[in-house]
Amino acid sequence: MTASTSVAGRLAELGITLPAAAAPIASYVPVVVHGGIATISGQLPFVDGQLMTGRLGEDVSLEQGTAAARACGLMILAQLEAAGLLERVERVVKLGAFISSTADFTDQPVVANGASDLMSEVFGEAGKHARSAVGVPVLPRGAAVEVDAVVAIRAD
Amino acid sequence: MTASTSVAGRLAELGITLPAAAAPIASYVPVVVHGGIATISGQLPFVDGQLMTGRLGEDVSLEQGTAAARACGLMILAQLEAAGLLERVERVVKLGAFISSTADFTDQPVVANGASDLMSEVFGEAGKHARSAVGVPVLPRGAAVEVDAVVAIRAD
Amino acid sequence: MTASTSVAGRLAELGITLPAAAAPIASYVPVVVHGGIATISGQLPFVDGQLMTGRLGEDVSLEQGTAAARACGLMILAQLEAAGLLERVERVVKLGAFISSTADFTDQPVVANGASDLMSEVFGEAGKHARSAVGVPVLPRGAAVEVDAVVAIRAD
Repeated sequence: MTASTSVAGRLAELGITLPAAAAPIASYVPVVVHGGIATISGQLPFVDGQLMTGRLGEDVSLEQGTAAARACGLMILAQLEAAGLLERVERVVKLGAFISSTADFTDQPVVANGASDLMSEVFGEAGKHARSAVGVPVLPRGAAVEVDAVVAIRAD
Repeated sequence: MTASTSVAGRLAELGITLPAAAAPIASYVPVVVHGGIATISGQLPFVDGQLMTGRLGEDVSLEQGTAAARACGLMILAQLEAAGLLERVERVVKLGAFISSTADFTDQPVVANGASDLMSEVFGEAGKHARSAVGVPVLPRGAAVEVDAVVAIRAD
Repeated sequence: MTASTSVAGRLAELGITLPAAAAPIASYVPVVVHGGIATISGQLPFVDGQLMTGRLGEDVSLEQGTAAARACGLMILAQLEAAGLLERVERVVKLGAFISSTADFTDQPVVANGASDLMSEVFGEAGKHARSAVGVPVLPRGAAVEVDAVVAIRAD
């Protein structure tokens, strides 16, 4: 991404339409900004408004899981856009990826790349982040993947 | 919470007595403050000094789990108080909620609200935080819930 | 650690040789530095280039698990060294420890101490950190432990 390209423009180039920012399903807010850092709540994978559910190693394929992680990443972008922060992203600092997994599924990094690759595509070097990816037995509403984020934000 | 009310006063209004701050059960400290941010270690749910153990979907009801998450939240407040930071809370930035869950329990957000609602009750708008809530198979000492936190702190 | 001792010197005193910094196994970077904070990606336990795999409560003993957590800690230090940050560590702020666990293994804090004790040995007071330790059913590549970190960095 060159400095002169807006993130909205880059999304359009990539043919990416952001989903509607999901409302929190509980007593919290999607994004908190403090001291130049946006902390984004764990996002679930909605595609066309439908939650991608299931478990890797069971009823979700590697391809579907990766698509779910990308959907979580798109929701992170949608939350930043809804908060008026999308064009002010300075650096994606960290993604935390929780992958619903059977006890013998060990390709969490491949799945999480669905979200990580999206950040590189959209933000270029500024999208390169630290990451943790772990297996969990179950996620809210039976989601296949949940991803949260820490993003550095430029002053207006 | 109005600006003129102390947090201690607000807790009294709510009829909340904080527990004794639990000692870390290992080689770490309960709270680190750096750059205006307090990072609070994962807190377990103690009620009257007794750990709430068990697993959601198995031997812990939704009500008990929510009470356990609230107990974790109270312990976060107790740690802030023990560190002399409770009256200097500027914003609850993030809660990370880990819920001991069977593979088919998917109401982690409801459980985590036990901690989230507490923050709103005590701090009002400043208590509205970003959050992740995930299922885990087991927690330290068999605890039902563990919650960690990132809290912005005002200068003295 | 006295102010006049380098971290490299302290590691030598302790007889610790850092491993080669592991390359990320996916689309992310090992360390992001922003605003004086280094965020280190989740590190897996490599000993002599070999990943320590398995699950606590099953085929990994408490001693092996603790050694695995220490190996994750060494990899965190190796990543800081590779990024040119090891001598600029101001404070270890937070470790996040994910322990591959059967449903009845509850000694995650003991395991995580493998990483926590290392930070105290190497950095002294500056190594005392906040921490979360949770059980997970499975980790990338079948690793026994994964640890990520937030570390405050001094200006040059």
